[in-house]
Parts: sequence; structure tokens; C-alpha cells
Amino acid sequence: MKFRLVAKDTCSEARTGQIETRHGVLETPAFMPVGTRASVRGLTADQIRQTGASILLVNLFHLWLRPGEDVIHALGGVSAFMGWNGPVLSDSGGYQILSLADSVKIREEGASFRSPYDGRAVFLSPEDVVRISADIDVDLAMVLDHLVSPLAKEEEVREALLRTLRWAKRSLDVYQEDRGLFGIVQGGIDPESRRFSARSLREMVGKDGQRFSGYGIGGLGIGESFSVRNHILKETIPELEPEKPRYLMGIGYPSDLLMGVLNGVDLFDCVLPSRNGRNGMAFTRSGKLVIRNARFLKDEGPLDPACSCRVCSQYSRAYIHHLFRSGEMLGPVLNTIHNLSFYMDLLSEARIHIRSGTLSEWATRQLSALDVPEGDQS
Amino acid sequence: MKFRLVAKDTCSEARTGQIETRHGVLETPAFMPVGTRASVRGLTADQIRQTGASILLVNLFHLWLRPGEDVIHALGGVSAFMGWNGPVLSDSGGYQILSLADSVKIREEGASFRSPYDGRAVFLSPEDVVRISADIDVDLAMVLDHLVSPLAKEEEVREALLRTLRWAKRSLDVYQEDRGLFGIVQGGIDPESRRFSARSLREMVGKDGQRFSGYGIGGLGIGESFSVRNHILKETIPELEPEKPRYLMGIGYPSDLLMGVLNGVDLFDCVLPSRNGRNGMAFTRSGKLVIRNARFLKDEGPLDPACSCRVCSQYSRAYIHHLFRSGEMLGPVLNTIHNLSFYMDLLSEARIHIRSGTLSEWATRQLSALDVPEGDQS
Repeated sequence: MKFRLVAKDTCSEARTGQIETRHGVLETPAFMPVGTRASVRGLTADQIRQTGASILLVNLFHLWLRPGEDVIHALGGVSAFMGWNGPVLSDSGGYQILSLADSVKIREEGASFRSPYDGRAVFLSPEDVVRISADIDVDLAMVLDHLVSPLAKEEEVREALLRTLRWAKRSLDVYQEDRGLFGIVQGGIDPESRRFSARSLREMVGKDGQRFSGYGIGGLGIGESFSVRNHILKETIPELEPEKPRYLMGIGYPSDLLMGVLNGVDLFDCVLPSRNGRNGMAFTRSGKLVIRNARFLKDEGPLDPACSCRVCSQYSRAYIHHLFRSGEMLGPVLNTIHNLSFYMDLLSEARIHIRSGTLSEWATRQLSALDVPEGDQS
Repeated sequence: MKFRLVAKDTCSEARTGQIETRHGVLETPAFMPVGTRASVRGLTADQIRQTGASILLVNLFHLWLRPGEDVIHALGGVSAFMGWNGPVLSDSGGYQILSLADSVKIREEGASFRSPYDGRAVFLSPEDVVRISADIDVDLAMVLDHLVSPLAKEEEVREALLRTLRWAKRSLDVYQEDRGLFGIVQGGIDPESRRFSARSLREMVGKDGQRFSGYGIGGLGIGESFSVRNHILKETIPELEPEKPRYLMGIGYPSDLLMGVLNGVDLFDCVLPSRNGRNGMAFTRSGKLVIRNARFLKDEGPLDPACSCRVCSQYSRAYIHHLFRSGEMLGPVLNTIHNLSFYMDLLSEARIHIRSGTLSEWATRQLSALDVPEGDQS
């Protein structure tokens, strides 16, 4: 994996660049659609490509349990397995340590889980994650981190942060440098812990001199407010080398993407455009739209008049409203295609404005039209 | 609507032709994917087109109740509403008279229903169906028929047959000849009743001299065996004018399509390729395949090695197996695309063999490899 910076904004930390992988080159800042189980819900690889996506996220933990890394390896790696054949990043299972907390036991060696598929006891170590990422042949792999809520007790956050660093070192030690490996910054909502975590990862060296290819900023988007989240970004990112990509994990709303870009983030992923799309919420340039609303019954217009995606050029709000009211699975599919296209377009425009030096003005105008994430209107 | 015969097979009743509609020309024999509520489950209009489909079926009864013919009319007709923009045939609601039997009352004037959507009492007459088909602007409309099981009591079948004929006459009387209108042959499994029904429709004239554009053969595929069904076709079709299209309603398996073609059928529809596809069953040139079967876990091959559809050229059995095991909606989508492509290819090949005079040999070879429909292995 190679990262090359192409342009830097003069009024913010924003930058645009290229990540070169064995499955192709992608431009940053980039948004990765979420294909947890090697599928972006309901979309074919062709449809994902048509949204403008250049890299996907899959979940190593889920694919390890089903269908198993041996199956994916035998099928030529996860990118070929999915019929995608482009760059893929794997999340590690750190999020599952939080989301499946009731059935997880953390030991220094790794994490013991009950499989959410069949209840069997399974064990995952940081070294396993590096090995499995090679087996399923992703382009970028995240290390196994110990994720806790940023609103957890200080001591708990601190313990998880230190364990994440020890696990990161063990991951580097077994890393073959055959693909990208990202360390993950933790530290809750405490700026000092975040800076410490970032510096530690930056300085970390594996036993054969290996270093991280880039950094995830993890443990956000799970309770803290929009402004706290942005404050953490501002405190963290200056501690990381500018020449390595930064990935804001699991975030967020369109306004989060803009703030992330302004703060120097290069990669994003989030389930929002697909999950909310499936539930009938469309993102538009003038805010959210709930397509089940009766006022769309006869609405001839597209989901977003300012959008040129396949869905907006072919289908009316009235039709998508009808699909949702009738429980037709095409409704979620069309909404997801539109939402992902919207996210891709937003970052595509951001890249253009970074190169042309007009980012701040453009981003401010966008932010004033977009919804601020729920739970923080302050 | 215009129908033009292009070629006739010398060894069977098979023929190939063209139906010209205001939304384009289609070649017969043709299979119509079922889009009951103006959507072929999970597939975009582009994906439907890519299967090779040239005409879709929608259900007038369902669309009348939801979103309502006024909505579809305001949106430019059902073909534009769906983003399909090609030919569309509407089924009338006759099948719902059977499938919703508990909440249906048949009077001479028409059928009273409880809406399956909200329970309100609704009434549909043969004249309503002709009017609604114009409102939603379909290319071919089926008259309202009174459908009973072909295995019902003789008297019941006879009564439904006669009512269907009286309703057909009333439909013709209000028919504007602005689109195709098909009468529907009924008569259960009694050849004499079927011949009588066919002759009556053939000779039927509306009050201003209107005649049917073609004929549905209805009331089959609901209990009778494969051989009885084919016997009925043989007895019925010779009673119909060769210069008008014949549509075998709601049938069936690939072997049913071949038998239908050999007996002179021009149009087919059936939920099987889409419904069974959603449930994990793939049609292939060497029989059915149940993709959830554990033996496909690592199978690198496509669903059908003899198929060149988008799914078979891009995805492995192992991947589709994984999608079904993981409950990913892309599994049903991919299976449906393949199954519909399989049906389209079968009829496309049939059309070629009719034109080249090699149909019988080809059809016999195909039939020996395909599954005979369930419930009749004799």
C-alpha cells in the first residue's frame, strides 16, 4: 500500500491524496461503504461501483466466523469473492468487543467470544487478525483494538487504551508488510489520552522494524457529541505523520464527513447511508427526507433534485414511497444507492475544492444546509 | 397493439412473432417477469432489462388499491412510474378472486373484496378493469375473469366459465381499442368446456364491433398435473385464431414453457423464477440447484456453467451460498437475476430454433435435462 499526498488546503488541515493498492488506486478523502459480511446490503458489485465507491469495508471478525478465512482464501480473497475486484479494508473485530460485550472476555492474550452465529466459543488474538487479513487478502487491515465507549469510566478507557497499544505492538511484530496495516488511536474523550495514543502508535516499531501504514481513529460515534468528536479530531491528528493516511472509523453524518475532511481525515466508513437508506431515510443536499411521508405520494421529483445518481435520474419520490409502503425490497435498494452516491459526491466535491483552494467557503455553505447529527444541536 | 407472425414450426404448433406496443416491440414467445406491485422484487429496471426481459407483468388489482390508479396516471403510467419504460401487461384481479376467496363475494355485477391492505370494502367490475388499465396506461390488459380451481366441482367451474364470458362481453363493450385487451379462456380441466370458452371468446364482438387482441389461457397451474395441463393446451389452442397472441397465465417451470411453446403459446408469466430464486433455488440447464446446500461452501463455479448472465459471469456458488447463509438480501437478488436470465435465454433459444426449423430436436433434448414440475413424475 502506498499513500501519496496530492494537495493540501491552505485554510484547514484538509488534504487530498491517492492510496495505491494491489486492487487499484483510490483518491482520498474517500468514503467506504460498509459490507460487513462481504455484501453491501442488497447491492451488486456493479451497483456499488456506480455510486462512485472506490474502496469497501468488510468485517474480518464476521468473515472469520462465516464463511471462514479458508473459504475466502480458496476463492481468491475477499475482493474477488464479492465480485468487487477493487480495494478492500477490513475492520478487525474491535467493535464487536463492544457490541457483543455480554459474551466477550478480554484477556491479555486476546478476546474470547461466543460466536453470534452458533454460540460456539471462539478466541481472537491480535496476531490472528494480522494472519486472517492476509488469508482473506484485504488491501488495508485494522489491528485488533480494545474498544470501550468513550463515555466509559476513565479507568476503563485508560486500560483499554493501554491494551490497544500492547496489542498494536504485537500486531506490528507479526506484520509482513505485504498489505497496509493501520494502528488504532483510542483514548475516549480525553485529549491527553488521545495525543498519547497517537504518539505511541507513531513511534511504534515492530521487531523487524515494521511500522504502521496509517492510523484509525476509533472509539468515536458511540455517545459523544458532534462538537466533542470534532475537538478530539483536532487534538489527535496533529500528532500523526502527515504522510500517512488517517481513517475516522464508523463516522458518520454528512456534516461529520465535512468536519473530518477539514481536520485532515482521509478515510471514512459508516453504516448510516445504507442502514438509514434501508429504513426509508434519504440524505439530500437540503437535509434528510423520510420517504414514507404521505406528502410524497404523488411527488414526481427525484429524491434529491441536485443529485445525478442512477436513482435520481430514473425514479420518482412517488415510486420509492410506493415501494416502501408496499414493503418491496427495491425501496431499500434504491435508497441505499442514492445515499451512497450522495456520500461519494460529497467527498468527490471536497477533493475538487481542496485542489482548487476553495474548500473552506464550500464546506461552510454545505454545513449550513446539512443536518447536524442527532443529540447535538448546540 | 399489433401482433405479427414471423415464423411457424413445421413439426409443432410453435411460432415466433412480434408484438408492437406503444412502449416498444417484443419478440414472442416471451416470458414476463412478475412485478405485482410495480416492482420485480429487489431488481432495478436496469437489472430487469439486463436479464433480457422485454415486457413485464403488473397486477391491476394491487395497483388500483395501492398506490391507486390516479397516482400512477399522474406519474405518466405504470411503465414510466417503475422507471421501466417498456411494454407492460396487467393481470386483472381474477387470481385474487381465488387467492383471497374468504373475503370475496362474486355478484353478477362484479367482485366485492376486503382490501388486503387495510380491510376496507372495495368493488371491482369488468368495466372498472378496462378503465383502470387505461388510467395506468398498460400496453396489454387482461379482462376480469372469475377464476376457480380447475379441480373444483364441475358445476362451480361451469358457472365461473359462463360468468367469465358474460364479463368478457361487458369488457369488450367498453373497450376503446387504445391498447391490447385479452379475453381469458376458462373451463377447468374439461376439454369440451375449454373449447367452448375459446370459441365463445373468438366469436365475441363488442357493441361497437370491438374484438379481443389476444387470449389468456387461465385457471391452470393450480392443482392439475403437468400432463393434464398440456392436454388442455392441445385442446384449447386450435380453437383460437392463429393471428392473435396466446398467453398461458401464471405457468410455470422451464419444462412448462417448452411444452407451451410447442403447443403454440406466445406469452408466459410466472412467479417461480423470482419467488424460488428468493428462496434459494436456482434453475440451471441441468436441473434445480439449492444454493444453501453445504456442498456449495467452497464451490468456485457459477450457478450454471452454461449460463452467460451477469450473475454467472461475476459471482461464485460459494459467494451466493454465503449470502443466503448470512441472510444477506443480495442472495435473493442475484438468484432472481440468474433465474430470470435463464428463462429469457430458454425462450430466446426457442425463438431461434423455431426460425431455423430445429425446434423439436432441441426441445426434446432440453426437456430430458429439465425437472418435470413437482407432483407429476408420471
